[in-house]
Amino acid sequence: MATPDIIFYTAKVCPYAQRVEIAFQEAKADVTRYPIDLLNKPEWYAPRVNPASKVPAVVYGSTKSDPENPSPESARVTESLVLLEFVADLYPDSGLLPKDPVERARARFFIDAVSTKVFPPFIAFSFRGESPDAFIAAVAEIQELLPPAAQFAVGDHFTIADAALAPFLGRWELLLRNDLGKFEEGTGPRVYKELFQSERFARLQKYYASISSRESFKNSFDPEYLVAMAKKRLGRQ
Amino acid sequence: MATPDIIFYTAKVCPYAQRVEIAFQEAKADVTRYPIDLLNKPEWYAPRVNPASKVPAVVYGSTKSDPENPSPESARVTESLVLLEFVADLYPDSGLLPKDPVERARARFFIDAVSTKVFPPFIAFSFRGESPDAFIAAVAEIQELLPPAAQFAVGDHFTIADAALAPFLGRWELLLRNDLGKFEEGTGPRVYKELFQSERFARLQKYYASISSRESFKNSFDPEYLVAMAKKRLGRQ
Ligand SMILES: N[C@@H](CCC(=O)N[C@@H](CS)C(=O)NCC(=O)O)C(=O)O
Ligand SMILES: N[C@@H](CCC(=O)N[C@@H](CS)C(=O)NCC(=O)O)C(=O)O
Repeated sequence: MATPDIIFYTAKVCPYAQRVEIAFQEAKADVTRYPIDLLNKPEWYAPRVNPASKVPAVVYGSTKSDPENPSPESARVTESLVLLEFVADLYPDSGLLPKDPVERARARFFIDAVSTKVFPPFIAFSFRGESPDAFIAAVAEIQELLPPAAQFAVGDHFTIADAALAPFLGRWELLLRNDLGKFEEGTGPRVYKELFQSERFARLQKYYASISSRESFKNSFDPEYLVAMAKKRLGRQ
Repeated sequence: MATPDIIFYTAKVCPYAQRVEIAFQEAKADVTRYPIDLLNKPEWYAPRVNPASKVPAVVYGSTKSDPENPSPESARVTESLVLLEFVADLYPDSGLLPKDPVERARARFFIDAVSTKVFPPFIAFSFRGESPDAFIAAVAEIQELLPPAAQFAVGDHFTIADAALAPFLGRWELLLRNDLGKFEEGTGPRVYKELFQSERFARLQKYYASISSRESFKNSFDPEYLVAMAKKRLGRQ
């Protein structure tokens, strides 16, 4: 086995890891993948790869070919948003970040808005059973950022802004439709209809169609598995 | 007056705006500054510059020279961390971001850690009077990220990682020393001693000396003004 330049520690269940998987695929990067079972993490993972003991993580430039024992002096890169920029830096011709500074700023502003505006109310709604209204309002704000006539978040080219949001949009669509969350029965499909079928969110729906039909998304999104994992988490097998 | 390529809307009181001011100065950028009085914002500011009605904001490439009425088709860039990347992109030779993808990732990881780990406990402590312990622990985590022998956050060159943290370190030093915060009297100086004088935080103190002695920092940090503003905010004139 050749010495792998990029070892990618990942888990199918994790939306943060899927962000990076999508970016690697869009960049046509040659990557050695190492799946981490989050319910049973190998004891070498934290000391040798990521002290925070999370996926995604990348070891870059290991002189040893064994993902379970990468060379200590190779670089460790973690945090999905840092990794998206890293992949864009390693593959500048991928278009994952445009060349124009203003366009790059648009991509980053979009990512910042997703992180700060949508995640907290989604968690409040889906994990703590609070009202979905703040979440729906935040998704409406994100929709406002989508250019009216272009395919992707910052134009007609797929960027890290799309990679950052896609895994979450995919999970929202899937889990709401299947009524999977810590909310009252029937709330999931109701919010699903609002976000993924109503006229109000037509722009978002078109956007979701664009990103979810990409090979990079389809190859890294396993709906049956995610539904099964969510049912398990919610004790609904 | 020549058409300004970069109009920078800023306020001396704001640490987020200081981040960007530091980056512009480090890049030796030619910038038209427009101070915004946050207690009395001009009515044109939100509609013409930043709908979020915050500083910092940048208008880039206006064809009109009037900062109060920039051309509508010029670009608006907001959010301090997006702006730090923007300045680094506009001035690639400034060294604000290194060229090496791994070093760039280090700078971004540092910024992410500052944003996610230190700010929430600082706010809990200083604005809500909770125990300082979580804040001190988070600062210790940041200290751990500093390279043991180098001057700055990712080596011997000043980067956006330093620009992102400097305004906050400056304010912590100043406000704690002057016992300014919503905590019990005397708590400020006690935490000040721990962070800025004790052996445990020697590495942080050396780092703070490196960044606070830069011209870019000194030119953009007005201690008397910040103390007066904090006293006003706390009703202690
Ligand atoms: N902020 C991190 C979050 C990563 C994260 O939370 N990963 C989860 C799985 S989705 C994880 O590995 N958790 C550790 C565990 O489950 O033990 C990022 O953006 O990469
Ligand atoms: N997340 C923003 C925060 C900017 C911010 O909060 N700015 C404050 C001043 S420090 C502001 O302009 N607030 C609006 C106001 O005071 O009306 C950034 O990083 O730029």
